[in-house]
Amino acid sequence: MMVKVKVPATSANIGPGFDSMGMALRLYNYVTAEEAGQGLRIDILDESRKFLAKDERNLVYTSMKAVFDKVGWHPKGLHLTLENNIMVTRGLGSSSAGIVSGLVAANEMTGNSLSVDTLLYMAAQIEGHADNVTPALLGGFTINVRQKDCIRYVKTEIKDDLVFAALVPDFFLQTKKARSVLPRSVSMRDAVYNTGHSALLAASIMSGKYENIRAAVGDKLHQRYRRCLIPHMDELFQICYANDALGVYLSGAGPTIVAIVHRDNCGFEPAVRQALRQKLKNWRLYMLRADNQGAVVCPLERSGK
Amino acid sequence: MMVKVKVPATSANIGPGFDSMGMALRLYNYVTAEEAGQGLRIDILDESRKFLAKDERNLVYTSMKAVFDKVGWHPKGLHLTLENNIMVTRGLGSSSAGIVSGLVAANEMTGNSLSVDTLLYMAAQIEGHADNVTPALLGGFTINVRQKDCIRYVKTEIKDDLVFAALVPDFFLQTKKARSVLPRSVSMRDAVYNTGHSALLAASIMSGKYENIRAAVGDKLHQRYRRCLIPHMDELFQICYANDALGVYLSGAGPTIVAIVHRDNCGFEPAVRQALRQKLKNWRLYMLRADNQGAVVCPLERSGK
Repeated sequence: MMVKVKVPATSANIGPGFDSMGMALRLYNYVTAEEAGQGLRIDILDESRKFLAKDERNLVYTSMKAVFDKVGWHPKGLHLTLENNIMVTRGLGSSSAGIVSGLVAANEMTGNSLSVDTLLYMAAQIEGHADNVTPALLGGFTINVRQKDCIRYVKTEIKDDLVFAALVPDFFLQTKKARSVLPRSVSMRDAVYNTGHSALLAASIMSGKYENIRAAVGDKLHQRYRRCLIPHMDELFQICYANDALGVYLSGAGPTIVAIVHRDNCGFEPAVRQALRQKLKNWRLYMLRADNQGAVVCPLERSGK
Repeated sequence: MMVKVKVPATSANIGPGFDSMGMALRLYNYVTAEEAGQGLRIDILDESRKFLAKDERNLVYTSMKAVFDKVGWHPKGLHLTLENNIMVTRGLGSSSAGIVSGLVAANEMTGNSLSVDTLLYMAAQIEGHADNVTPALLGGFTINVRQKDCIRYVKTEIKDDLVFAALVPDFFLQTKKARSVLPRSVSMRDAVYNTGHSALLAASIMSGKYENIRAAVGDKLHQRYRRCLIPHMDELFQICYANDALGVYLSGAGPTIVAIVHRDNCGFEPAVRQALRQKLKNWRLYMLRADNQGAVVCPLERSGK
C-alpha cells in the first residue's frame, strides 16, 4: 500500500500568541510512504537531504512509528520519499510538518483508526508544543492550549484577502537557542500586555477587523529578547511597516519574519524586494496565502509507478 | 432638555483576560439628566445613596463635566436622578456604568458631537482601564487594548444560549485593595499560560465552541492572589463546577464570582440556590443574560413630568 500526504508550512506565535497561535501557509512538504521490501529506506528529493537523517532517527519515520506502536501493526519494510519545500530551521514549522505528515501517513496506512484529536495530541507530545502542529494538521488560523490529556483549540478559516509575506534569511536559528535567551520571569505589566494583545489579535483576525492587527500584534514576551539573534530584525520590521504591512512579527522562534499584508496592497512586494536587493541580499521574500485544509492524503495518480 | 440613559452592568477579566475582556449583562443603572434651576442637584432613588456622593464629586456628574468641558457648553443648573441596580464595589462595573452613563447623557444633551470611540477613550481615561467601560458602552463581549490615543477593541454579540450566574456576597472589595495583592513580576510560564488561555477563550466564545470554556477560563495572573480576600471562593467555584458550569471566574477584581452556564442547564439555579441557603447565606445568586446593546438613550414618556 502506498500513501502520499501533503502538509503545509506554519507560522507560529504571530506576535503575542506565544506557544498558542499558528497559521498554515500554502507552502508544502510531501511524504510518500509505501510498505515495501525489508527495513527502512528514505529518499529525500531536495536540498534538505543535507540536514535531515535518512535512517531510524528521521522525524517523519519516528512519528510514523508512534502510530504503528499505538495501533500494534508494523510494516515489514518501509520506503519513504520526502519532497520538502519548507525551509529547515527557519521558523516555518518544518519539524511540525515532518511530525504531522508521518502521523497522517501512518494512520492512513493502518486504516485511519486514530481520530484527528488523537493525532493532534500525539503531534504536540512529539514536538513539545502545539502551536505549529495544530495548524499543520488542521489548516487555517488556530489557537490552542495544551492540557494533560488533550489539545483544546479553535480553528478559523482565513479569507484570501490576507497575504503572508515571509522574509527568510540564509541562516538557521535553532529553537532551543532561541528559547535559551528568554528570561524565566517577566513583569506583571508585560504579562498583562501579552494577555490582552493575544486575545485582541485572535478576535481581530476572526472578525475581519484588520485595522486592529498592527496594535494587536504587539508582543513583550519573546521578540525583544530574540532580536539579538537576528541581525537586521528591526530594520526589516521598519521596511514592512513603511510599506503598509497590517502587522509584522517573528515567525515562531525566528529567524523568519512575517508581514501580514492586505491583498490589495500591490506596492508591498516590489518595494520590499527592492529593499532586500539593495541592502539585505541574504534575505528572500515569499508571498504566501493561508492554507485552510491542513494535512491531506493526496489521491495517487493511477498512471504513476 | 431632559435625557434618560440606561447602562448595563459588566463583568471583566473573565478568567485569563486581565484588564482586556469584559461582558455586558442585563442589569441596568438609569440616569435622568435635566438642565434645570441653578447649581447641581442629585437624587439617588435606591440604597446606593448611602455610599455615593451627591455633590460635585459624584462620578456620573464628573463624567458629564468632562464632556461639557470638551464641547465648551455647561448647563446653568443640572438635576440628576440616579436609579442604580448594579451593586456597588462588587466587581460588576458599577463605577464604569456611572462613567459611561454620564458621558452618554452629557453627549446627548450637547448634540451628540462626540463619537463613540471618543467617548470610549474618555471613559477609559477616567476609569484607568478599559475592560469594564468598553462593554458598558458597546454591549456584548468585548476585548480591548488601550493605546496612547485610542482604545482598540473587538465587540462580539453573545447569543441567548449563555447565562451568566453572578454570585454576589454582602461584603465589598475595593479594586485598589484587590490590586495591591498582585505581584509585580510573574514567571514566564504563567505569562505564557494566560496569553494562550485568553486567546483561546476569546476564540471559543466567538466561535461558539463552548466546550473549550472550562479549559480556556484558566488564569494564573490574578485569581490565585485574590483568593485570600474572598472567603469561600474555592468552595463556590467547586459548587458551580459540580453543577456543570461551563466556566467559573472572579468578576473583575471580585468579590463577585460568575459562572457561565448553558441555558439548557436547568438544574444549575435550584442546586446553587440550595447550596447558598444551606451554608453561604451571605451570597446571593443573580441569573443574568448578556446585554448586546450597551449604553442607550431611552425614549422619554410624554405623559411623564
